[in-house]
Amino acid sequence: MLDYTRVDGLSAADVERLRAVYEPLTESVRELVDAAIRTEADGDTVAMARAEIDAATARLRAAQRDGSFGIQYGADGVPMPWGNAVIGIRNPSAPPVVIRRDPDGSVRSDFHLGAAFEGPPGHVHGGVSAMILDHVLGDAASKPGAHRLTGTITVRYRRLTPLGRLRCEARITHTDGFKTYAVGHIADATGVTVEAEAVFIEPKWARG
Amino acid sequence: MLDYTRVDGLSAADVERLRAVYEPLTESVRELVDAAIRTEADGDTVAMARAEIDAATARLRAAQRDGSFGIQYGADGVPMPWGNAVIGIRNPSAPPVVIRRDPDGSVRSDFHLGAAFEGPPGHVHGGVSAMILDHVLGDAASKPGAHRLTGTITVRYRRLTPLGRLRCEARITHTDGFKTYAVGHIADATGVTVEAEAVFIEPKWARG
Repeated sequence: MLDYTRVDGLSAADVERLRAVYEPLTESVRELVDAAIRTEADGDTVAMARAEIDAATARLRAAQRDGSFGIQYGADGVPMPWGNAVIGIRNPSAPPVVIRRDPDGSVRSDFHLGAAFEGPPGHVHGGVSAMILDHVLGDAASKPGAHRLTGTITVRYRRLTPLGRLRCEARITHTDGFKTYAVGHIADATGVTVEAEAVFIEPKWARG
Repeated sequence: MLDYTRVDGLSAADVERLRAVYEPLTESVRELVDAAIRTEADGDTVAMARAEIDAATARLRAAQRDGSFGIQYGADGVPMPWGNAVIGIRNPSAPPVVIRRDPDGSVRSDFHLGAAFEGPPGHVHGGVSAMILDHVLGDAASKPGAHRLTGTITVRYRRLTPLGRLRCEARITHTDGFKTYAVGHIADATGVTVEAEAVFIEPKWARG
């Protein structure tokens, strides 16, 4: 089944050391992604930039894991979903979304979406909103040690979401056996732009 | 409203010249994104790679457009949604999805999702599947000159989608005034993994 249990024997100090090495790399690549979309540099300049980029890629690929990042766990049981498409601190394509949990169990995230997340001109791609809502509602529906996967999600678009500073919030509404129901939304400074409801399922193999 | 109408007076030859300059840049950055996620290089190597990446970013930012890419049109009316989060050939975070239209109006895309699109270990993030389905169903529901935006989309997950080669297909089921209904799915080599249905709306400002 899913390789959620790989333990690399990392101490908390090891995890922090790895974060200090790789998080700045992610941030540099994320800046480059934005620059590559927006640049109006001429062909010669682009060729020079490409040579530098390809050199960096070759350096990094000299030692790399096979396949995708997966989810590693530190020795203290802290999950490291660092490659994740939405929250991964080692994934330059992730916004990244950083989720905070309130005492009542609801979750929220303040994040910024730039040029890499565009659909309609100047606005967030509707699919990107759906992607973020899927993750944040899923986080609200999960607990440590209980991995829940999306069963069905419905996303309603009230109006276009502008690129820039946004907030996503989500909470559980009720549970029914192995099903957990959650709702949430994305909002800009003037209110809700997209809302979602979903049911999450605890896979059979993960049930105690 | 949306700046869909910007015309930059580009000839077809200009568009091809721009594509030849910038598409290889996008591909280089996309490779770097994958390498940055998967690398196990040590701190010194990562620091050298970062210096090269930051130098490339500075070169590209020396001449860049304000804000996001938007949608430009060539003089011949060909849209260039090159910054788009799903299909943008200038967006290194886009897979990119390339959509083909069949004579019956249905659309399909064969694409590859690697480490940058991971959710559960070795598998596509459910939100990424939702993002791609939103775009491909929207493409099926749209016609040249008729921009349709997602009203509501429902995504059902039948099973986990493995990273790798995938196909997405979509088609219109029916229309009702300014509403167009579409269905579609994502499949791997052994069958459908995720399915979706959605209603798309032609915005008031775009109605003839």
